[in-house]
Order: sequence, then structure tokens, then C-alpha cells
Amino acid sequence: MTAHAATLEVRTRGKGTTEITDDVARVVAGSGVRTGIATIFLQHTSASLVIYENADPSARVDLHAYFERLVPENDPAWVHTLEGPDDTTSHLRMALTRTSETIPVQGGRLALGTWQGLFVFEHRRAPHTRRVVVSVVGVT
Amino acid sequence: MTAHAATLEVRTRGKGTTEITDDVARVVAGSGVRTGIATIFLQHTSASLVIYENADPSARVDLHAYFERLVPENDPAWVHTLEGPDDTTSHLRMALTRTSETIPVQGGRLALGTWQGLFVFEHRRAPHTRRVVVSVVGVT
Amino acid sequence: MTAHAATLEVRTRGKGTTEITDDVARVVAGSGVRTGIATIFLQHTSASLVIYENADPSARVDLHAYFERLVPENDPAWVHTLEGPDDTTSHLRMALTRTSETIPVQGGRLALGTWQGLFVFEHRRAPHTRRVVVSVVGVT
Repeated sequence: MTAHAATLEVRTRGKGTTEITDDVARVVAGSGVRTGIATIFLQHTSASLVIYENADPSARVDLHAYFERLVPENDPAWVHTLEGPDDTTSHLRMALTRTSETIPVQGGRLALGTWQGLFVFEHRRAPHTRRVVVSVVGVT
Repeated sequence: MTAHAATLEVRTRGKGTTEITDDVARVVAGSGVRTGIATIFLQHTSASLVIYENADPSARVDLHAYFERLVPENDPAWVHTLEGPDDTTSHLRMALTRTSETIPVQGGRLALGTWQGLFVFEHRRAPHTRRVVVSVVGVT
Repeated sequence: MTAHAATLEVRTRGKGTTEITDDVARVVAGSGVRTGIATIFLQHTSASLVIYENADPSARVDLHAYFERLVPENDPAWVHTLEGPDDTTSHLRMALTRTSETIPVQGGRLALGTWQGLFVFEHRRAPHTRRVVVSVVGVT
């Protein structure tokens, strides 16, 4: 049994999704774990993780537009807006998606389905560098 | 320490929830792990996992109806509809719920609360066979 | 490698968020794990877990108000209301947030970001005692 951890830095371009599947897969391959789990954890409260279809980019067009509508920036009810109209909405969109994702490792590889990709979902308007911790635990 | 993995095939009947608690419990029992964790991971982007009350079926009536309303199929804004009106909405409903769930194992059993059941939440209209990977890591 | 588990009892004051970051950190410190993961699991279906900004309390004012609006209690469509107007809405708000969260452990500590706190999100009007299982797996 072994446990291995690495931190990825992911540069976002402002609002939207950035795929990190290959980066996480490299950490898993480097860990030597054959059977176990990989936990991916985003260390931020104004961005989140989401597993989404990674074949047809139009799927993510709807994802981005839907969250603009579900948690609109121009809502007069918000009180936590010190850092701008995308402040409180970033936290709410994060809470509605995910901060951690745990993916089984089988045969030394992430056991993702055919159409699944892992994305950092940036909720702030400005580009950010986001830290993602990948922790792999299992049998070598 | 040991790590064990198994894949379940879950037949859904189209939209709605299918309980898999007992199937996951069997994998945990067969793993020999006494203390540790079980990660349940759904390998699809148009269905999801949800832990929900499993005592009174009326609870899930509201769950199903609520998601129809929260992410409606007849919305003219959707662009990702190649596979039908339940295409993009399936992905969005998945993103709002869960793809992985990690449950502690204590005394060789899943440490679920009294009213908690684990369900596959099918978001497509047609029945599907869904693959669920269960990975158990811990001390025997 | 080791696996360690503990159950926390968290007293909520009715609807709202109660921070448990320090309680979880104590379990991690006591486990002796240096590198691995901590899974936090809430054994209830009418409360949930959420990682949220823990610096400015106004952030959580918006969180609480948003969920009142997203899943309103006074909706005539609900059928699962035997235990009151906060019955089915508690389950739905739980499904939209999280039941388990898995956080990497690095250097013997939870690898949380600077502004991240872990909270129990109570969805019932009345105060409750909520059980949270913390399971730590990794290398000592």
C-alpha cells in the first residue's frame, strides 16, 4: 500500500471550464498505484470541479449558460459583493457543483467512463491560477 | 491494508432513481475491509448518484419532479440537443448532483445513516445499463 | 498504512451552517496519518455538507437565502410534507449540495485552501444533533 500526493497549478481564462483529465492521469501513473482511489481536491471557494462530457464542446456551452441563469450576477438580493458582482455567485456556483471528486484507480489508470472528463469550473470573470491537490491511495 | 474493486451493472427504467445500497454493501462485505472507505463512482455523464431518504417513496417523487422543473427539457436556450430534448438536461442534472460518493466503512459495513440509501439517478428517457465502480480501501 | 475512524456529534441551531473544520482537523491529527485522505460523511438526509468561504460571514448569508429561494418551502407541488414544510425541501437541498467530502491529508494536516471551511448545512427548522463520520486512510 502506498499514498502519494501532488499539487497541480491550473491557469483558467476567467469563467468557463478547463479540462485537467490528462494532468490527473499523469499523477496517477507516476504514483505506481494499480488498485485504489484518486481524490482530486480544488483548494478554492470561487471555482469548482465538475465531471462532464468531454467529446462535444456544445455540452459545455449549455453548462456555462445554465449557471449564469441559475445564479445570476445581477440579483439585487446578494449582500456578499465586496469583490464584485461575481463574488457571492462564485461561491454559490461552487456549492452547487463539487470541490472534491474521488475516482477509482484500476489497472493503474483512472476508471473514467468513455465520455467523462474532469474540469476546473472557473466562476470568476478574471483568469486565475487554481491549485488542485491529487491524492492517490492504494496497492502498487 | 488492502484495496478491492468491483463493477456493478445497473439497469435503469428510464428517468428516475434505482437503489443500489444492497449491491454496494455486498461488494464491501466481500472485500474483507473492516475499517476504511468505499468509493462509489458512476461512469456516465447523463446519469448520476444521489444519497436520498429510502423509507418513504414520496420523497423521491418530489426529487424527480423538482429536477424536471429546475432543468426543463423544453427550454429553447439549449444548444446541445443532438440526442434529443433529454441530452443536455441529463448532463446538467448530473452536474447538480453527484458522480462519486465516498462512504466510510466501519466494522466491515457501510456507515450509512438510518434513512440513507444510495441511488443511481437516471436522467435519460430510455432505459440504460449503467456501470458503477465500487472501490474499497482499508484495513482487513 | 493505517485507517482510523471517529464520529463527531454536531449540534445545529436549526437552518444554517455550523463550521466543523477544527473538529475534523483534530481527528486527522489524532490519526497519525501524514499522507493520505480524510473522508467526511454526514449520516443524514435532511442536512448536508458544504465547503464554503469561512472568512466573511456575509458569504453564508447569501448561501442560506439562496437555498430558501431555489427550493422554496411554500411550493404547492410538494407531496412529501408529512413532517412539515421543511421536510421534502431538506432532502432536495441536501441532494444539491454534498453528503461526503474527501480532503487530502498532506504533512499530517487537511490540505484545505486559505479560505475554505467545512460546514454542516442544516436544512430543518428545528435544532438537531447530526452525526459526522470522519475516516482517515493513509501512511503514518
